[in-house]
Amino acid sequence: MVLPIVGSEEVKVTPWEAEAFVDYDRLIKVFGAKALSDEEIDLLKGLAGELHPMVRRRVFYSHRDFDVFLRMFKEGFKCALYTGRGPSGHTHVGHILPWIFTKWLQDRLGLHLFFQMTDDEKFWHDEKQELSVTNRLAYENILDLAALDLDPRKTHVIIDSEDIRYLYPIAVKVAKKITYSTQKATFGFTDSTNVGMVFYPVLQMTVAFLPSELYGEDVYVLIPAGIDQDPYWRIARDIASSLGYPKPAQIHNKLLPGLGPEGKMSSSKPETAVYTTDDPEVAKQKIMKAFTGGQPTVELQRKLGGNPDRCSIFKMYEMMFEEDDVKLQERYHACKTGNLLCGECKAELAERVSKYLIDFQRKREKARNNLSDFLLRTKFNPPKVSK
Amino acid sequence: MVLPIVGSEEVKVTPWEAEAFVDYDRLIKVFGAKALSDEEIDLLKGLAGELHPMVRRRVFYSHRDFDVFLRMFKEGFKCALYTGRGPSGHTHVGHILPWIFTKWLQDRLGLHLFFQMTDDEKFWHDEKQELSVTNRLAYENILDLAALDLDPRKTHVIIDSEDIRYLYPIAVKVAKKITYSTQKATFGFTDSTNVGMVFYPVLQMTVAFLPSELYGEDVYVLIPAGIDQDPYWRIARDIASSLGYPKPAQIHNKLLPGLGPEGKMSSSKPETAVYTTDDPEVAKQKIMKAFTGGQPTVELQRKLGGNPDRCSIFKMYEMMFEEDDVKLQERYHACKTGNLLCGECKAELAERVSKYLIDFQRKREKARNNLSDFLLRTKFNPPKVSK
Repeated sequence: MVLPIVGSEEVKVTPWEAEAFVDYDRLIKVFGAKALSDEEIDLLKGLAGELHPMVRRRVFYSHRDFDVFLRMFKEGFKCALYTGRGPSGHTHVGHILPWIFTKWLQDRLGLHLFFQMTDDEKFWHDEKQELSVTNRLAYENILDLAALDLDPRKTHVIIDSEDIRYLYPIAVKVAKKITYSTQKATFGFTDSTNVGMVFYPVLQMTVAFLPSELYGEDVYVLIPAGIDQDPYWRIARDIASSLGYPKPAQIHNKLLPGLGPEGKMSSSKPETAVYTTDDPEVAKQKIMKAFTGGQPTVELQRKLGGNPDRCSIFKMYEMMFEEDDVKLQERYHACKTGNLLCGECKAELAERVSKYLIDFQRKREKARNNLSDFLLRTKFNPPKVSK
Repeated sequence: MVLPIVGSEEVKVTPWEAEAFVDYDRLIKVFGAKALSDEEIDLLKGLAGELHPMVRRRVFYSHRDFDVFLRMFKEGFKCALYTGRGPSGHTHVGHILPWIFTKWLQDRLGLHLFFQMTDDEKFWHDEKQELSVTNRLAYENILDLAALDLDPRKTHVIIDSEDIRYLYPIAVKVAKKITYSTQKATFGFTDSTNVGMVFYPVLQMTVAFLPSELYGEDVYVLIPAGIDQDPYWRIARDIASSLGYPKPAQIHNKLLPGLGPEGKMSSSKPETAVYTTDDPEVAKQKIMKAFTGGQPTVELQRKLGGNPDRCSIFKMYEMMFEEDDVKLQERYHACKTGNLLCGECKAELAERVSKYLIDFQRKREKARNNLSDFLLRTKFNPPKVSK
């Protein structure tokens, strides 16, 4: 389903679909966000002591009020992180990309993270989906958070269908601020959209205000997430002050391309996505079959070089699997000059990903024993109905 | 706000507005319900041992599947009652009319009652309303249930904003079955309707299915309520079997007219409504000022007689405050023949209502001590997310 977003008819990026190689400069303009500037980066470095590769390389590249958030943090105001997942299937590496950065923020700034599992949304969105399935997948997806070493004492997972009592007293107030017209214009809903989908955005916005209710004071919330989620936060920011909450800030990551010729890495195309639950050998095979920016033949590759800027394999290195900036630069040049063939480049990535998955899956399985430590409901009382 | 209902453009009866003296025969046709027939009445009498005046006089006058409900009850299938209240203010006698009959059913058939307090809906519906106010009023309204002697062991009140965890696992499935188009056509929503109102009908329908989830078996539910609530149950019945629940049955009461020249008794016109919390003297004054079916002068009344069929005072006797059929008939004739003047008729009603309120208010205040006994949450665990 292609859902148009007002003002972005030429750029296919919605919460439900996105192209692989998006013109992100254009997207910033269309969405009305700000490019990440030296000011925010210096501020972050000063507070965190270093910079994560995803910031150095502008994998996180645009924002709303990230500067405000960092200044509030610096001045000692209460701050928190918020991101989430629609549990429509197992997690792939495109999903964990922003979570890796979120974990780094949690460690470096000592922040609590509120993580929403939208089992209701994924049930509503897919005609054939069962709620019992999306609910079970939510618990599976929590294992991925544990495998990323997120701190369970500071990571609070909300599963919509089970933890609605934490959201509803706030959601009721949020819903009153939003007309059907706004939802329609923002998310492209039509008369045939089910009323679950129509209501759902309210719940995603609500979590941005939950920390303020749970702590009983203004909490400044930063949302690290793909820019495809931006429409939710635009509305949330519009209504925040009228509800007495600080505006949530965002930092947007670019979307990891899928291994096929087009589209972001997506659960709807499993053969082009590397899942955290994939057998490492299967993951290797997917990578070896990936669509690259290379030439049709070895001879042409040697002569003309590849195009790493349009290559799903290079993007995997750049965005997740090569921490060393110098080595990444060397790989870029070796590709461009025809010195590196796609087969070699893929084989090396396949090896790294395989090792990563073996370690990840060991931690993932171990986490089944302390999964409940991650649940919000084991640590907080629901907020009361307030004015 | 006048909300058109499909197929009923000429009859102003919606969940939010109704005329005083409705052509109920026409309404039955417009809504596609069935008139209460001798078959259902005999069946009820056989099971209950007697007939409530509200049935004898067709205050409850139409239904959907009331016959099916009674047969299922007779055959020993699990059955329950469901009704509710939008806590926008204190309760008036028009509200308690169906509750009196519901209490009678509870006693006579030994049924459990699920009672929904829609503090969310009333907050959403009125731009200037606060959730803290509707929530507080929900608790005030519970006192009225207690004053009516409903059995707290068999009366389970759901307050939407606080008990959402009982509803949401079911509501998620209900919401997927209903398109925005259906809500729009049924309730007259527009682009400027807030998304809370758009979602709300899902929650009202959900309670019809809650008993089946709480007991883990098919529960046949009867909803005694004004026909103005029928649109909710039409949709609920349409989707019930696809969700694996029995269709809820209904029995519709006529609406008590307000004491003014037009409109049902309504909280939006407090001077024409007798509240259960009114000072008995104030209630008397309201009744003495009521608009009647009488003539402009005593002389004309003596000569032409009054019109009890269009008289708010006679309807109060007929629907609630005269149990004796013979005495009611005598009053009718005395009015028609000009032998009874409006002043006398009002004074007698004022006296009865005043006595009723004194007794009611004593029980109402006493109930503050055991209010929590009526709450669903003190007696049941929330249902789990099921398939």
